[in-house]
Amino acid sequence: MRANALPDHNECLAELAELLGDRFSTGEAVREQHAHDESWHHPESPHAVVFPENTEEVAKIVKICARHGTPAIPFGTGTSLEGQVVAVEGGVSIDMMRMNRVLEVNAEDLDATVEAGVTRKQLNEHLRDTGLFFPVDPGADASLGGMTATRASGTNAVRYGTMREAVLSLKVVTSDGRIIKTARRARKSSAGYDLTRIFVGSEGTLGVITEVTVRLFGIPEAISAATVSFSDIESAVNAVIMTIQSGIPMARIELLDEVQIEAINAYSGLDNPVAPTLFLEFHGTEAGVAEQAERFGEICDEFGAGDFRWTSRQEDRNKLWQARHDAAWAAKAMRPGSSMWPTDVCVPISRLAECIVETKKDLETTDIPAPLAGHVGDGNFHLLFLLDRDNPDELAEAQRLNDRLVHRTLAMGGTCTGEHGVGLGKMHLLQAEHGEALALMRQLKTAFDPQGIMNPGKILPE
Amino acid sequence: MRANALPDHNECLAELAELLGDRFSTGEAVREQHAHDESWHHPESPHAVVFPENTEEVAKIVKICARHGTPAIPFGTGTSLEGQVVAVEGGVSIDMMRMNRVLEVNAEDLDATVEAGVTRKQLNEHLRDTGLFFPVDPGADASLGGMTATRASGTNAVRYGTMREAVLSLKVVTSDGRIIKTARRARKSSAGYDLTRIFVGSEGTLGVITEVTVRLFGIPEAISAATVSFSDIESAVNAVIMTIQSGIPMARIELLDEVQIEAINAYSGLDNPVAPTLFLEFHGTEAGVAEQAERFGEICDEFGAGDFRWTSRQEDRNKLWQARHDAAWAAKAMRPGSSMWPTDVCVPISRLAECIVETKKDLETTDIPAPLAGHVGDGNFHLLFLLDRDNPDELAEAQRLNDRLVHRTLAMGGTCTGEHGVGLGKMHLLQAEHGEALALMRQLKTAFDPQGIMNPGKILPE
Repeated sequence: MRANALPDHNECLAELAELLGDRFSTGEAVREQHAHDESWHHPESPHAVVFPENTEEVAKIVKICARHGTPAIPFGTGTSLEGQVVAVEGGVSIDMMRMNRVLEVNAEDLDATVEAGVTRKQLNEHLRDTGLFFPVDPGADASLGGMTATRASGTNAVRYGTMREAVLSLKVVTSDGRIIKTARRARKSSAGYDLTRIFVGSEGTLGVITEVTVRLFGIPEAISAATVSFSDIESAVNAVIMTIQSGIPMARIELLDEVQIEAINAYSGLDNPVAPTLFLEFHGTEAGVAEQAERFGEICDEFGAGDFRWTSRQEDRNKLWQARHDAAWAAKAMRPGSSMWPTDVCVPISRLAECIVETKKDLETTDIPAPLAGHVGDGNFHLLFLLDRDNPDELAEAQRLNDRLVHRTLAMGGTCTGEHGVGLGKMHLLQAEHGEALALMRQLKTAFDPQGIMNPGKILPE
Repeated sequence: MRANALPDHNECLAELAELLGDRFSTGEAVREQHAHDESWHHPESPHAVVFPENTEEVAKIVKICARHGTPAIPFGTGTSLEGQVVAVEGGVSIDMMRMNRVLEVNAEDLDATVEAGVTRKQLNEHLRDTGLFFPVDPGADASLGGMTATRASGTNAVRYGTMREAVLSLKVVTSDGRIIKTARRARKSSAGYDLTRIFVGSEGTLGVITEVTVRLFGIPEAISAATVSFSDIESAVNAVIMTIQSGIPMARIELLDEVQIEAINAYSGLDNPVAPTLFLEFHGTEAGVAEQAERFGEICDEFGAGDFRWTSRQEDRNKLWQARHDAAWAAKAMRPGSSMWPTDVCVPISRLAECIVETKKDLETTDIPAPLAGHVGDGNFHLLFLLDRDNPDELAEAQRLNDRLVHRTLAMGGTCTGEHGVGLGKMHLLQAEHGEALALMRQLKTAFDPQGIMNPGKILPE
């Protein structure tokens, strides 16, 4: 690990130890646990891990780090997918998971304020008796702070938006240890620069998010879910494109290719037909859901879809979506001991079939398993490379395929990452995506973190 | 006008004259035309006005201004409401209205790219045969560039969002004359900092927006509009609150108080009952609209509403909404020769009735006419003070009432401006709204416009 060659930050660590007592750790196991996320990126340990319990404590921690020029890396559930939490320059990992209180639910305003360590499932569990829910659902049961920092989304962004739309306001500790609120609870505002959106997607590089105020939604009167398979992936994607263009307000419309379906069947003991399959959900009134489903069915008929498998009981729906959320784990089980390298491109919907077909063709040149799953209603899909990260040839091969995929996407007006963020893995692609605009991102970083202590070595290439 | 006491910027003007020929003007009438917006704020003329025809020309203009430290003030339709375009330090007004081409409509992706001078009505006219529309509709037929810069919204933000959600990407000339694209056309992205949202709402203080890519929506299969009046304003607002909390997907839900209704009746020759009135629109399928209208009707019954007046023919709907959009002009006609001072608070919906009732009570202490109109589904409402701006007593009185209104709003978790922006008029309120976060806004301004030439004297108080 590179950390050994870095400054030792001993004075900083001593001050933190004094401040936090047994909520400060330099134990090897704890440091290793905070050295990596869920992805293939090689771990690098922080010098220490701290476990703050409130915003004021985070501010004190960051002030100490700032005084000593020590890197500070916010850490949530550790489920990021581009190496966002890897301590490439050592420093202090700030584990936010003890800040896990739901602070306020304003049911009548459809919003809630939580500490950054509250997870999406925890929030929804807390909301159980309110008739409300929080929709954004990345695969993992991530923390709201981490989801905000990653600008995460998931299966129902097509209807309810991503963290960009979900967040109303944030409490943030700045790189010099000030505590700010980015906005008020009003649904809209034109009162100056959009600080909220500056921190959404900033991946811990501009400050530490300590509280998140999010929008909630009423649980729909009627929910209906289904799967439907197609003989080929192009037909499946074309059905999606027409659905979106027709304005049917799908709550979820997810594509899994035949490779991924086979993996899920094996992992979850299911019997889905091994073919490109759409996973769907309709939300609305009883009549509205029936109408949506009927219209969608007509589109599927045009594209030669197989039979629908409907589920309406909540238990069955949960099972269906758990299988979808488990796609990554199911894929990983295809090659035990492998590491995940998930790609994450997103294109304008009209180019999606072309992009997926070309990409599947490109995969014929490799032996690395690469099931495909996507939030296709948004134009966003993932390949999941399953590789031996200690094999340089496989890493180079995945890099080659991913770079080709990203450049294909950029040529279609798309982005290198729809929801996983930049972290370490996409830094070398940002120049191609943003060009001159990257200089403005650097100006922003320098303005908000002049010392460069906030999660250094992420997002912006050197 | 203060401009006379400012630096003369003669070298800058000479260079601009040479660059632009007859698209550079120092004529008094042209300068006066660019000295003010639609609000009460006192005009101050720029030294010159330029009329660029493309982004490259804007970049050259800004580079010349930057070299000489001359203020540069983007100017659209001049319909801002907080003095955003007033040349308080003189300089060059950049009139964007010759950049009025619709560059690209991607019907299959539901987006369009336009030059900054294209107005919302022009875009919708252009879209006429596509089955698509652009929803954001401030009262004026504003330019898309200006609407972006103001983070504008209007009557259907409750369903379709504000410019914050509508903008996918921008082309921007930075304060040193570089040309950047803030994002790609993909519906979602986690590829670095959200530059798009930094420029949305920046009011010309961070750069010049020259192109805007916006989301479009399919024209709904069925549209139905109505008005319904209530015996008192609290009942009207409580009906709105319950409607929003019930999750009925209203396309528009607007409140006009009895003073505003009387003004509209007189101005547009209508015969609405003189009482607090909701203006409504339902979008969806035939069955969906019928269902929404029925549910909404049940809520109205609970709050003792009068009869609905329905309109379904497009012509009648247009007339209904034109009357709503003309509210400001109708109000102005109540006091010929007066200036408008529109307030613009926005509160969490649960506090809306309380906020409006207290505000109406406060108005009993003044003789200044102040009709009320609001995008109440968002918690946003306006008073329209009609005053003699040359009468210092009236200005002080309006300032007193507005400040009381804003502080009432802030205490309820609201914002001083829902959609009009800060400009000159709200600067003194930002410290109360944002506290320490205002320092971050300053850091952003300094990073993006280190010389302070972009629309100086706006948004951030000294």
